[in-house]
Amino acid sequence: MSAAARLFLERSYQSVGIDEICAAADARKGSFYYHFSSKGELAKAVVDRHAVTFAARLAEFADDDPVHRLRAIPDMIGAIQSEFESQFGRAVGCPFGNLAAELSTTDDTLRAHIAQFFAVMEEGLALLCRQAAERGALREGVDPDHLAHHLLAQYQGVTLLAKLNNVHVAGISAALHDFFSVYLTESPSAP
Amino acid sequence: MSAAARLFLERSYQSVGIDEICAAADARKGSFYYHFSSKGELAKAVVDRHAVTFAARLAEFADDDPVHRLRAIPDMIGAIQSEFESQFGRAVGCPFGNLAAELSTTDDTLRAHIAQFFAVMEEGLALLCRQAAERGALREGVDPDHLAHHLLAQYQGVTLLAKLNNVHVAGISAALHDFFSVYLTESPSAP
Repeated sequence: MSAAARLFLERSYQSVGIDEICAAADARKGSFYYHFSSKGELAKAVVDRHAVTFAARLAEFADDDPVHRLRAIPDMIGAIQSEFESQFGRAVGCPFGNLAAELSTTDDTLRAHIAQFFAVMEEGLALLCRQAAERGALREGVDPDHLAHHLLAQYQGVTLLAKLNNVHVAGISAALHDFFSVYLTESPSAP
Repeated sequence: MSAAARLFLERSYQSVGIDEICAAADARKGSFYYHFSSKGELAKAVVDRHAVTFAARLAEFADDDPVHRLRAIPDMIGAIQSEFESQFGRAVGCPFGNLAAELSTTDDTLRAHIAQFFAVMEEGLALLCRQAAERGALREGVDPDHLAHHLLAQYQGVTLLAKLNNVHVAGISAALHDFFSVYLTESPSAP
């Protein structure tokens, strides 16, 4: 799984074969098929592995104040991207977004699996945005559910553009902070 | 080129071979290599073809007022996505973004080619945003260059999420309008 996660990020899903994954993991092909029925099943497990890392990162930023938690998201995404940049020596994009872009039209099981993870993430963001709205922290007229979708989309977009432009990922959290600030009222947290 | 553009959008770049493109185009392989030295060269030509369509769409929305032109961008993107949806029967994402996500780490020539097109697009958006700022149409504190980047990223993000969630593309222009509105002052165009 670790070898597959690395190779998928370094290149792409389609460009990496099972033989290569086995060689990188020093595993036999029989052993692979003992654990996974196909490369698609492996990819689902890789998505779950990234999802666990993602959830652990979110938990690190635990704070009772929903506005603080919202404001911490750009840095959290930036921290994840920095780790990838250190590992690969360049921006490699979002592991979920990469697979979504490559496989959504050809592997409906994997598409639905990633979509399910994103739905949970968006619902979590929407909950925070609604709590922030109740505290008067959202600019007037901003719909918290829409903001959750915008934030998820902006995260995907800026991460993809950093990968495309082959620039340092340090700009990702800055861009997300800037994007976010216009939706929030001035006070960091109005109780 | 037309067959390749279709197959890349329907599936992905890596999952389509030269043999299959030739078969879909009813062309011989010798004829393919007469025009293109590789699949990567063909992909560059496909990108250019999409870029021409994109520019033609932008020209349709020509208007002397930069604020009107900015406000027309969500509908323009929505119209392009609707055409793809009619052709393929589902959301297939952005042709530039799909290739960017799949190939940025493995084909630097193609990456740079798409990045160049995006740089031109972003500069065009930034020019409109600066003109809009001069007319007082941007909310106070909004940096026009940053807004151009946010808009490009948001377009990529919402298009990817529609493909991932396999939902109607009608939501794309609505989401972009909603995203955009918070950056603009109330009046549609303040001269």
